[in-house]
This record gives sequence, C-alpha cells and structure tokens, in this order.
Amino acid sequence: MTDRSAAVAELVSSLPEGVVATAPAALEKYRQDWARDPDAGVPCAAVRAEVADHVQTAVRWAARHGIPVVPRGAGTGLSGGASAVEGGLVLSLERMTAVEIDPDARCAVVEPGAFNAAVKAAAAEHGLWYPPDPSSFEICSIGGNIATNAGGLCCVKYGVTTDYVLGLDVVLADGRLITLGGKRVKDVAGLSLLKLFVGSEGTLGIVTRATLRLVPAQLAPSTLVATFDSVRGAADAVVAMGRVVRASMVELMDRPTVNQVEDFAPMGLDRGRALLLVQSDAPAGAREAEMDVIETSCRDAGAVDVFVTHDPVEGESFVRARRLAFPAAEASGALLLEDVGVAVPQLPDLVARVEEIGRERGVDIVCVAHAGDGNTHPIVMYDAADADSTARARAAFEDILTAAIALGGTITGEHGVGRLKRDALPAMLGPDVMEVTRRIKDALDPAGLLNPGALLPLERAGQR
Amino acid sequence: MTDRSAAVAELVSSLPEGVVATAPAALEKYRQDWARDPDAGVPCAAVRAEVADHVQTAVRWAARHGIPVVPRGAGTGLSGGASAVEGGLVLSLERMTAVEIDPDARCAVVEPGAFNAAVKAAAAEHGLWYPPDPSSFEICSIGGNIATNAGGLCCVKYGVTTDYVLGLDVVLADGRLITLGGKRVKDVAGLSLLKLFVGSEGTLGIVTRATLRLVPAQLAPSTLVATFDSVRGAADAVVAMGRVVRASMVELMDRPTVNQVEDFAPMGLDRGRALLLVQSDAPAGAREAEMDVIETSCRDAGAVDVFVTHDPVEGESFVRARRLAFPAAEASGALLLEDVGVAVPQLPDLVARVEEIGRERGVDIVCVAHAGDGNTHPIVMYDAADADSTARARAAFEDILTAAIALGGTITGEHGVGRLKRDALPAMLGPDVMEVTRRIKDALDPAGLLNPGALLPLERAGQR
Repeated sequence: MTDRSAAVAELVSSLPEGVVATAPAALEKYRQDWARDPDAGVPCAAVRAEVADHVQTAVRWAARHGIPVVPRGAGTGLSGGASAVEGGLVLSLERMTAVEIDPDARCAVVEPGAFNAAVKAAAAEHGLWYPPDPSSFEICSIGGNIATNAGGLCCVKYGVTTDYVLGLDVVLADGRLITLGGKRVKDVAGLSLLKLFVGSEGTLGIVTRATLRLVPAQLAPSTLVATFDSVRGAADAVVAMGRVVRASMVELMDRPTVNQVEDFAPMGLDRGRALLLVQSDAPAGAREAEMDVIETSCRDAGAVDVFVTHDPVEGESFVRARRLAFPAAEASGALLLEDVGVAVPQLPDLVARVEEIGRERGVDIVCVAHAGDGNTHPIVMYDAADADSTARARAAFEDILTAAIALGGTITGEHGVGRLKRDALPAMLGPDVMEVTRRIKDALDPAGLLNPGALLPLERAGQR
Repeated sequence: MTDRSAAVAELVSSLPEGVVATAPAALEKYRQDWARDPDAGVPCAAVRAEVADHVQTAVRWAARHGIPVVPRGAGTGLSGGASAVEGGLVLSLERMTAVEIDPDARCAVVEPGAFNAAVKAAAAEHGLWYPPDPSSFEICSIGGNIATNAGGLCCVKYGVTTDYVLGLDVVLADGRLITLGGKRVKDVAGLSLLKLFVGSEGTLGIVTRATLRLVPAQLAPSTLVATFDSVRGAADAVVAMGRVVRASMVELMDRPTVNQVEDFAPMGLDRGRALLLVQSDAPAGAREAEMDVIETSCRDAGAVDVFVTHDPVEGESFVRARRLAFPAAEASGALLLEDVGVAVPQLPDLVARVEEIGRERGVDIVCVAHAGDGNTHPIVMYDAADADSTARARAAFEDILTAAIALGGTITGEHGVGRLKRDALPAMLGPDVMEVTRRIKDALDPAGLLNPGALLPLERAGQR
C-alpha cells in the first residue's frame, strides 16, 4: 500500500493541480455508474483529464506501475462498464467537453466528455443533426456512447453510434495516441481499426477525440399510437410496415408497462392493451402516404384503436409516455434493467418468454422495446430489502439472457456487456469467438490494464 | 518442389473431384484480378470451394504445410488484393453463390461468391433492396465487396458495405469457422469483430456466409445535370445541397472526362465544362422540393446550364455517361485507376492538384468523383509500349497518393489497399497505426498465411 501511495503521489505531481482527485469523499462519485454495481471497488485516484496529454500521462503512469485504468464518461452506463476497480485509477473524461462543428464537411469534432445533447445542439445551430439518441441523451457523454456503440429511439431508421463515427483519437495501453479516420466519409485504407474501437468499452484504448458525421436536420414527425390485444399483433404490424417504409421511431410498451406508466402519471392510456408508438419524419407530401402504410399495417395486424397526429407537440406527449417507462419502474422499487435483442420476427417469442419467466420466478417484469430493431428492455422489479425477492429477480435476469441466446439473439443490444453481463458473454459467443476476442485484447493491451473485468473475465495476475 | 507437389496431391485427395484445379491452363484465370498485377505469381493450386467445409479443409491444409492462401471472389478487384502468390493456394469462392431472402427479418443470407446484382435481384422479388452498388455490381461478388468494404454511387445517401453487414461466418487462419452477428439489427455483445473482418481484404479470415441488411425498395429517381466552368463551383454546390438534403447520387466528371466520354460515345455533352450529376429518390410530394434545393445550390454556385428530368429513363442516360468514364478511358489505352478521397470541402483542392500532377508528369489524367463523398477516381492514361510513358504514369499515380495524404485524405476510398497501394499505406497511417495493424494481423494470423503481401508488407520468412 505504501507503494501505491508513492505511485499516487507521483501521479499527482505529474499533472496540473486539481486534475487528480485522491480524497475518499471526492472519489466516491467515481466508484459506480448507473448500474450501481455493488462489487465496485474504491479507486486509488481519479484523473479528471483536461487534454489528451493528461490521458497519456495517466495511462503511461498506470502502465509503469501496473495499475488498472477504468475510463469514465458521464457515468450513465447501465452495465457497470465504469465500475471502479479496487485500488485502480479512474480516468474521467468529464472535463473534455469541446464541440466544434464543420458545417461544410458536415462533421462534429468532439471531445469525449461532451454530452450527446451538446453535440445535437451545436449541430442544430448549423441546421444539422447528430442522430444517435440514447434515452439518456441529455446527460450521457459521447465517449460513453462510443464505448458502448449506443443506440436509441431513432436508430431504427438512422443507425447506431458506429454508423456516425468517422474518426477517433485513441490513447493506447502504452500511452501512445493514434489517430484513426477523419473528416473523409469513405476510407478503406487499412484494417477497420476505427470500428473495432467503437463498442470496445474502454478495454482496448481511451478515446480522446471523435469526428462524427452529421446529416441535415430531421423534420418534425407525425405520430401513430395503436393498441393491441397481443404483443404478437404489434410485432406483425412492425414487420409489415418495415417492408414498405422506414419509420423514424417504432417503440412498443407491453400491457404491464402501460399500467405502470399510467399508475405513475395518469394520461388516459388503455390499461388493457399493449401500445405501439410509430413516428414518420418523411418530408411533407410523402408524409401522409407513409403514415397510411403504418396505419394499414397496424389495422391489418389487429390493432384495436389507432390514433394519428401530425401535431409534433401532441406526438411528443405519447413519446413521453414511452420515456416514462423507466422512471415509472424506478418509482416502484428496485429494478434490474435488461437489454436483450432478437431478429424482429422473433420479438413476440422473446416477449412471451419474458412473461413466462416472470411467472416462473414470481417477479414482476414490464417490457418496453425498440420494436423496429428487435431490441427489448425487460425491467425486472424486486424488493431490495427482501433477500428472496432479490435472488428471484437475479435469477429472472439470468433467465432472460438465456432466453435471448436461445432465440439466436443478443444479451445486449445497446447498453454494453460491462461487468454485469460479462459472465453471460461466453454462452452467447461460444469459445472460439471468445478466444478471438481475447487475442485482440491481448494484442492491444498485453498487460490487461485497460478496464479489466469489463466485457472479458479477468485472466491475468495482478489485475485485482 | 517435390514437397509442394506431394502437398498438392494430398489436397486434391482430401476434397471432392473437380474442386481443386492444378493444371497450368486452369490456374491462369486465378492469377490476377482487374488490377492485372504484373508481379502476380503462379499458384500451386486453386480450390473452388462449394461449401464452407471445403474452405476449412483447404485452410487447414495450408496451415499444416505453411502455404499462403489468397482468397478470391469474382476477380474484379482493382488493387491486386487477389493477385496470386507464387506457389500459394488460390481459394476461390466463385461456386458458393446461394442467396436466401428473409423478408420478415429484412435480411439476405448470402454465400460469398454471389454477385452483388444477384442479391439485389433476389431482394427485389420481395420489394426489398440491397443498396451498396459498386460500379461493377453486375459482375462483382459479395465476398469481394465485404473484403474491400466496397462503396458505390448510392452510398452518399445509403452508406457502404459495412453498414449492411449484420452477420458473417468466417474461417480463421487455423481452419476454425466462427459465426459473428446474425439477423438481429442491434448487437453490442463483445468487441466489434464483425466490423473488423469487413474491409480486411482476406488478411484475417475468409468469409463463407454473410447476413446482409435489406431496406424497402428505392424509388425511381429524378436527375439533375449541371455544367460548371470549374470543379470548384461544382464542389461548392455539393457542399451547399448537402447541408439541406440527402441526394441519392452526387457524381462529378471533370472536363477531360466529359471530352473523353463524348469522343467514345457522342451524346451531346458540353465539352467545355465539368459536369455534375445529382439524383433524388425522395418520395413523390417531397421530390420537387428536394430537386429545387439541388438546383438552387447549383445555380448559386455558378452552374452554367442546369437540366432536370423526372423521367427515370432519361435520367439513366446521364448516369450512363458517368458509367462510360472508365470504358472510355480504357478504350484510349493503358491506364492506372486511382481511388483517393478527401473531406468534401477539400475536393476542389484534390482535383486541382491532380490536374497539376498531370501537367508536371506529362500524362493525361481524367477525373471522375463520387463528389458527395469526396471520393475521386483520377484515371492516369499512358502508352504501355513506351517505357517512359509508363514510368511517368506510375510517378503520377504515386504523386496522387501523396497529394491525397497531404490533404488529410485517404489513398483508397472504396477499392482497397491490396498489393498496388500497400507500400503507400504507412505514409498515410503512420508507424503507430501500422504497428497496431500488424499486432491485429499477428493475433489472428500468426503464421502470416492469409493473403500475404496484401494490405500489409511481407515481414515473415517463408511467405513467398
């Protein structure tokens, strides 16, 4: 421990005043992300980097002393990817928030601590748009979005984070900074290292700058709300409309979710049915035809009530109902948030199996889904004061992962593996893909110091 | 050599009759791709795999004997990525051509030898569309498209190959077959290995199956043709329209290209000016507003003549002019085809520098560009019978690569590095990125047997 103290003193002296936090009270906020991982450790220090050079200094220091480094954005991650490692260093990018728009090249050059919403706002000043929109977009950082390859609500039409990353500056495990890509839109020179770093959850390197592709501003959408007696009917509608039009939002709330939201904030939702929420941002003139296809798809699939509005404000009130699903669940007690996904036609099977798991384990599960992508967020609720309830909830959580894998799906569609799902990854990917993953990790981080325990299991000595 | 003969006999006996070609005449067609690499070797054999198992058998055999393997699709590559290695094995996927459409999941499951056009055609039977459209789409294979992360004309709006790859089966260097991704649209479980294999030019593994994302069928486009006194004016128009609309095609032919095409197939083009060709596939109702933006952008940027047609057949006749750029250049003699790219605002600087290089080296260069992406195809023409002309053309080719790098651009936007641009890659990526690239290569292909000499320089003994 004396060694670690001496090392920390060295770190403090090698960076400007106020960059390194070491006081226990100051470190507390760097221990966990939104996953509230109970196994999160207490770091030896937190570096609040202000420039890439601080990141390089810290990483070189960590490499020299064999100290693990957990990179951290805004701390809104849902899978424990930013849980601190006991005695390790937290490398926070929260102070690196610069956003610069190049309207001619239609790019944003962004530091990792900038919020997603800040990029959207800066782009909007030039009539441009950065599409990826995780639900937490107002408070999550671009660095975290890149680390998890974050999705969101509009990605059913506009794609996910990786589709918008044109360039990255990355600090490698040995402290070198490399630049990949840039403002050019098309580039196939060399291996797709850029895409490898996106979604690598801080295990291969630390992003210090990103060049993001922007597109012309989105038009205000029209909104359709349809109720269904069964999730299967709603999913059939999603499949049917997807063959003809590209809706800009396709969200599903199952009946228990509708009830929970209505309990939380009464707004006159139909408590007896699942709710499908679809938006079109097609340009005026084409808008009505697209909404017609969406409406017909719903009616043909057995929708009970269908309501369409071209008023964006009224439409937003329904989107608000969808956004309240998570707060409503949170208000009802402790919860485990899932993020499993399947091919769209398997969506009803997954939702049915989740219902079954709730019954089998005796826990309440509500389920919202980015239905157009087959990505669902079952929310398992439990009583944290009750050990049995907690155990049943955890068992249900694991069952849902198993169910997704059995349906040929994924254990995480947009939140990342982090530490919470790390042990489920091998069952999904199999030994050969895991072995390839480990080879890549070892090639880029031979000492295993970058975010150890996230994504991959610990395998090396001295990591914790 | 006796050893190699015995090894080949072993290979022949381990695969069904007719799968392995060994006769010199039969091997001739597997020596080169469209790059016509004069340094291509003579392979010891060519395996025409019919199922993934044949690929595994061949790769295991090669691993056992330390024999290099060059994977090959339709052989339409333009950078020598499929040049045979002397005494090595060519692994042709030409016989694996199955295409299966899952209209509900909106996917195509495709073997690598299937032509791009076959995937488009199969999708169209279900009202669906596979967007990536390299100019050679009628005769290039999906495997090759994936190996190079191929682009095309519509990628300015619809993205490139990697944006459509949801799943891959890959045979690794040791013969194991791994499955990455699948029909699910969103999946962030584990490292983005899928994206790493796309664009890896056969150096990391051999794709034996791909799951490709499909979208609803494209609408027949409207077309605008505008002439400009300068490429700079045309580029200004491209930047201006790009801030407001997403055109589905934005192609540029410089004045020398227009003249060469008009010589080759007279169609009344304006010989004195550069030509910008823009299409909109916006839905009816929105179409006219989009075309108005495009037209206004051109006129504001100084277009001399602007012609708009909503007739797809008439529009296609102009696209034909663009497609004739390469055949017209070919008809005029030997040529070197470039594929350099920059951020869109740097396009005029690149084109101006290419003109300068033509003057400096005393060679004729015509230049066509996927202008909306900043990706240009300067074509350097020369007299192959004249050593001096040939040397000047090669020098110009190298100068253009250097110019693209100096402008912060790329040496290849969509054709790949292959063997033709391998030696230029380090100047673009720098030593650190090259070193990371080499580490990934070594992690996945430690013996260096997969397409040695493509993308990366040879570094190991016994590779050729």
